[in-house]
Amino acid sequence: MILTVTLNAALDITYRVPRLEPRSSHRVREVVERPGGKGLNVSRVLAALGHETLVTGFAGGPSGERLRTLLAEVTEEGPVGDALVPVAGNTRRTVGVVDEAAGDATRFNEPGPQITPAEWDRFLETYDGLLHDATAVALCGSLPPGVPVGAYGTLVRAARAAGVPVLLDTSGEPLVRGLAARPDAVKPNAGELAAITGTTEPLRAAEQVRRRGAHAVVASLGADGLLALTPDGSWRAEPPRRLAGNPTGAGDSVVAALLAGLVEGLPWPDRLARAAALSAATVRAPAAGEFDRAVYEELLPGTKVTAQLVAA
Amino acid sequence: MILTVTLNAALDITYRVPRLEPRSSHRVREVVERPGGKGLNVSRVLAALGHETLVTGFAGGPSGERLRTLLAEVTEEGPVGDALVPVAGNTRRTVGVVDEAAGDATRFNEPGPQITPAEWDRFLETYDGLLHDATAVALCGSLPPGVPVGAYGTLVRAARAAGVPVLLDTSGEPLVRGLAARPDAVKPNAGELAAITGTTEPLRAAEQVRRRGAHAVVASLGADGLLALTPDGSWRAEPPRRLAGNPTGAGDSVVAALLAGLVEGLPWPDRLARAAALSAATVRAPAAGEFDRAVYEELLPGTKVTAQLVAA
Repeated sequence: MILTVTLNAALDITYRVPRLEPRSSHRVREVVERPGGKGLNVSRVLAALGHETLVTGFAGGPSGERLRTLLAEVTEEGPVGDALVPVAGNTRRTVGVVDEAAGDATRFNEPGPQITPAEWDRFLETYDGLLHDATAVALCGSLPPGVPVGAYGTLVRAARAAGVPVLLDTSGEPLVRGLAARPDAVKPNAGELAAITGTTEPLRAAEQVRRRGAHAVVASLGADGLLALTPDGSWRAEPPRRLAGNPTGAGDSVVAALLAGLVEGLPWPDRLARAAALSAATVRAPAAGEFDRAVYEELLPGTKVTAQLVAA
Repeated sequence: MILTVTLNAALDITYRVPRLEPRSSHRVREVVERPGGKGLNVSRVLAALGHETLVTGFAGGPSGERLRTLLAEVTEEGPVGDALVPVAGNTRRTVGVVDEAAGDATRFNEPGPQITPAEWDRFLETYDGLLHDATAVALCGSLPPGVPVGAYGTLVRAARAAGVPVLLDTSGEPLVRGLAARPDAVKPNAGELAAITGTTEPLRAAEQVRRRGAHAVVASLGADGLLALTPDGSWRAEPPRRLAGNPTGAGDSVVAALLAGLVEGLPWPDRLARAAALSAATVRAPAAGEFDRAVYEELLPGTKVTAQLVAA
């Protein structure tokens, strides 16, 4: 089973309005609710790829209840196991307002529930138990209030002690602290790389991140594809053509493909080709956690993986 | 007991952001949830004025559950009885985004749950039962999908048949249809008056609305106070000074004051003075359903009620 951790899961709410006009009142035309949070997206994609997967993290209050109901309903692509730890606070909502005239979206993200020390301890116990049956684990997204900023360091160390390969996908200080615990892989995007290294040149930034502790760095560079620095070599992976669409969740699909390729025992270049094609196919799907299967199968054979010369 | 009906109750969610920037992603600084919907605001104000009051209408799903929890917690001002009828759909949310730099708000209102014919029938039974103990009833706000557009006509007729004075506060076609059933009073604002009569001159518009069936018309004209055409005479009511603040809920406070004055047996001019002062005191409170008691008590003695000469 592939385990994903989403400490700050969300109930994703999307509103469609004819036009967003600040300072006015809008009648929302359509309301769509989805389970949200990076790890949940990763698990949904893994399930669609035919992998057994389980989500953990926190869920609480009416939004948490709704999130769990929606997660149980997502079975078209394959079931996602729910091992979320109940908390007293209310799971955060994220509200995305889609302006139908402009075709763009404005997002409002709640901070998330306050996690108590007892709830954090309960999560750590659950996590340790789940690691026994995990073939790989992904640690995804931001931390809710109350969770220690060094949380990902703790979770990376526990996975490594249990012999479970661990991928970390977060940003800022939680990423910096997680890196020090030497995760098997991290998957920053260009903005996250720049934020923690101070350089906007992806290759140099990725090298720095690798020196800080990650065994492999897979940087997602939007339409430019992926840049990977791994113990087996360095590569760029690019799908055969650039696709316009909704980039939300593209990075989560990269994480799903990397984990799937890892547990299937694929070599890095094959994992990267799949990750780049799956990421592009996610851009063509209406929401994060979903991808266009026909586009994926069409893009995969043409996705180019080229070796990179990188200073040791 | 004063009964209020809110067929499209809402969970009101307020987000504070440093600045609203369309097409970007915002971290919400503060999330406040309140029971929402016009009738609920009216009942909260009535409870604060010391009146026994009960809300009915519909509530369902996780938002409905949260709304009922919040309503039960609103006891500072006095208890509000909950006779909301459970439905399968999810109570709508209204999201207000406060831009802290500009000091203004942008609102997104969900349409509300689909009400089934069986749920509407269950409501009608509940309503008929509640009318037995009601000294007055207010019918407030928009209709959720599935409720017949002539709903307020039905509810006005049932109240009149039961001998319970009925005030209608809605807009558009539901108001037009409700008027035909001859409610004791309606409380349109200037925009609503103009929308159904086609004239922007409040006195002429109010006269038209009265001819269409309302025994009394109390028009709320924002900072200009109230204009009332009643069977006992016509008046304007104006607080001694104009106050800046948040106008949301000011009209609901007018309804609360009118009902309170009615059941206390006050003459119209006294009801109107209270309504105008309470409305202004609501503008000084942070949210709908609340008012600044000190401001109310300060404004009331100076509120001017002047008789109007109106063509018969």
